Amino acid sequence: MDKKLRFGVIGGGSWGTAIVKMLIETQDQVAWYMRSESAIDHILNEKHNPNYLSSVEFDVSKLQLSNNMNTVVNGSDVLIFAIPSAFLEGELKKLFASLEGKIIFSAIKGIVPESGLIVGEHFHDVYQIPFKNIGVITGPCHAEEVALERLSYLTIACADEQKAHWVANALQSHYIRTKISDDIIGTEYAAMLKNIYAIAAGIAHGLGYGDNFQSVLMSNAIREMKRFIDKVYKMKRNINNSAYLGDLLVTGYSTFSRNRMFGNMIGKGYTVKSAMMEMNMVAEGYYATKSAHLMNQNRIKKTKTPIINAVFQVLYEKKNPKKVFKKLTDKLN
Amino acid sequence: MDKKLRFGVIGGGSWGTAIVKMLIETQDQVAWYMRSESAIDHILNEKHNPNYLSSVEFDVSKLQLSNNMNTVVNGSDVLIFAIPSAFLEGELKKLFASLEGKIIFSAIKGIVPESGLIVGEHFHDVYQIPFKNIGVITGPCHAEEVALERLSYLTIACADEQKAHWVANALQSHYIRTKISDDIIGTEYAAMLKNIYAIAAGIAHGLGYGDNFQSVLMSNAIREMKRFIDKVYKMKRNINNSAYLGDLLVTGYSTFSRNRMFGNMIGKGYTVKSAMMEMNMVAEGYYATKSAHLMNQNRIKKTKTPIINAVFQVLYEKKNPKKVFKKLTDKLN
Repeated sequence: MDKKLRFGVIGGGSWGTAIVKMLIETQDQVAWYMRSESAIDHILNEKHNPNYLSSVEFDVSKLQLSNNMNTVVNGSDVLIFAIPSAFLEGELKKLFASLEGKIIFSAIKGIVPESGLIVGEHFHDVYQIPFKNIGVITGPCHAEEVALERLSYLTIACADEQKAHWVANALQSHYIRTKISDDIIGTEYAAMLKNIYAIAAGIAHGLGYGDNFQSVLMSNAIREMKRFIDKVYKMKRNINNSAYLGDLLVTGYSTFSRNRMFGNMIGKGYTVKSAMMEMNMVAEGYYATKSAHLMNQNRIKKTKTPIINAVFQVLYEKKNPKKVFKKLTDKLN
Repeated sequence: MDKKLRFGVIGGGSWGTAIVKMLIETQDQVAWYMRSESAIDHILNEKHNPNYLSSVEFDVSKLQLSNNMNTVVNGSDVLIFAIPSAFLEGELKKLFASLEGKIIFSAIKGIVPESGLIVGEHFHDVYQIPFKNIGVITGPCHAEEVALERLSYLTIACADEQKAHWVANALQSHYIRTKISDDIIGTEYAAMLKNIYAIAAGIAHGLGYGDNFQSVLMSNAIREMKRFIDKVYKMKRNINNSAYLGDLLVTGYSTFSRNRMFGNMIGKGYTVKSAMMEMNMVAEGYYATKSAHLMNQNRIKKTKTPIINAVFQVLYEKKNPKKVFKKLTDKLN
């Protein structure tokens, strides 16, 4: 089975581009859906994605590019979704091809706004995909470093261990190590929550807090993340594994992180709207903040989440970041 | 009792200077020992330490400076030691004043080379100080940020909770928060081990590994630290608290960290000797690496410490950092 699996990637952004790069190291053919026809033309002619990770050169003979998602879905056994969670449902609406029998891996970090669910749950609840066919690909992994072939570790989570191995084998190469996990819920929530903490780290930096405080913030963030995830789905997990703590750190500390950059602008005095306009994109953590806040109010048994609450107050209640973070410092230790 | 305690600081380096700065925010008088008579003269005349944190201005009317440690010991109830562990025993040899009845807090991160013990154990075993009179002050806290009055959190550990509170109260101010702990062994070992992991982070950076790998390294480091400390002294502790994880992160990620800088030079190709000469100082983690390695061979029941082993091979067995770290990457996940 392993050899014959056909992989398809949904999404032409930086993370989708990085995943295609990983896959063609091991696969003869990779199907790749992206919306932009001009980007597809550019890749076919110039061998690189004009918009993301443009330093990566592709062997285009291995790519089956299409701006029709149905073609890619029909031609693939394993589908890896790598589009912003806010656009997922809009894209899926264009889909007529059946997802039945497909193995669906999410490389998306966030909540689907229409359902308020993480992507794995969304595919299960809305599209009736059985959990044994659903998986998650998480970092710590900035796409930019994949482009540079800098050693990176991925965690591949699936309730069906064999499928996790199939996907792991297809992704690993001389610069990608993989690890298997059965915690699809926990890894996906960690991937979502870490973006909120990265925004918090950015706000703190923008407000002038230093390295000493940053480390205290991250130390509190991983404890808060554990409380949150344990409430959502209790199982034996070591929160200090790479998929949880590592992913938090790479996002909270790296200058590559868009969520941290977004927070930094807020801390420096930009309004949410002007920061978004300036960045010309929406940081995933913006939506995640609202979702996590709502979940903690309603869906899960309430747990102490002072950092998420602070970010929520700044982003959605327009409270003064300086005052909110001053109060937050009293709640950390 | 609280009001009448007299505090003395032993050491005129950057951390000692930072601690004196914290103490004079709350104390009328602080005794301060440093070796250099010219530095003392400079402080008295110019109001700042010429060698460390020179931006800090002291109210000298509150300082009882002396280059005779006996004077400071005799005049203090609480002694805070903040000199490199490698020099501690040499300094204590000059001491004729009795330590009996003194409360001794260590702000030293490292192993005393003569005894192979952490500082608290050393005072207990060699100087017969009862554990109830021994405490530890740990970060995450770079002295440089204390100088800038950037919000920082300290953990004050002592078996005797009241004494921990006394010291905590004396140190906290508008830019210093404190937390109490009863884990004097664990916090002190964490403070020592984190310097080894900071060297590892520096070596990896020097070798060209990126942010993705760095986060995996730190995620593995905190798990290795937990295994090590649990073997030394098993008790209920949350390794993700600031005194452990926070301290690791501030040292592993900060550009202020001398241990990280030392590792970075090694990774870039400097020999150990030339890196030390270039830095004009010895990174604490250099000694800590040997001590931790020996402890793991002999004193404690052996546990898996691939990162400490790798740093030991590079620093003490002169093995090629590139090859050693290549092998290390296979052991991380």
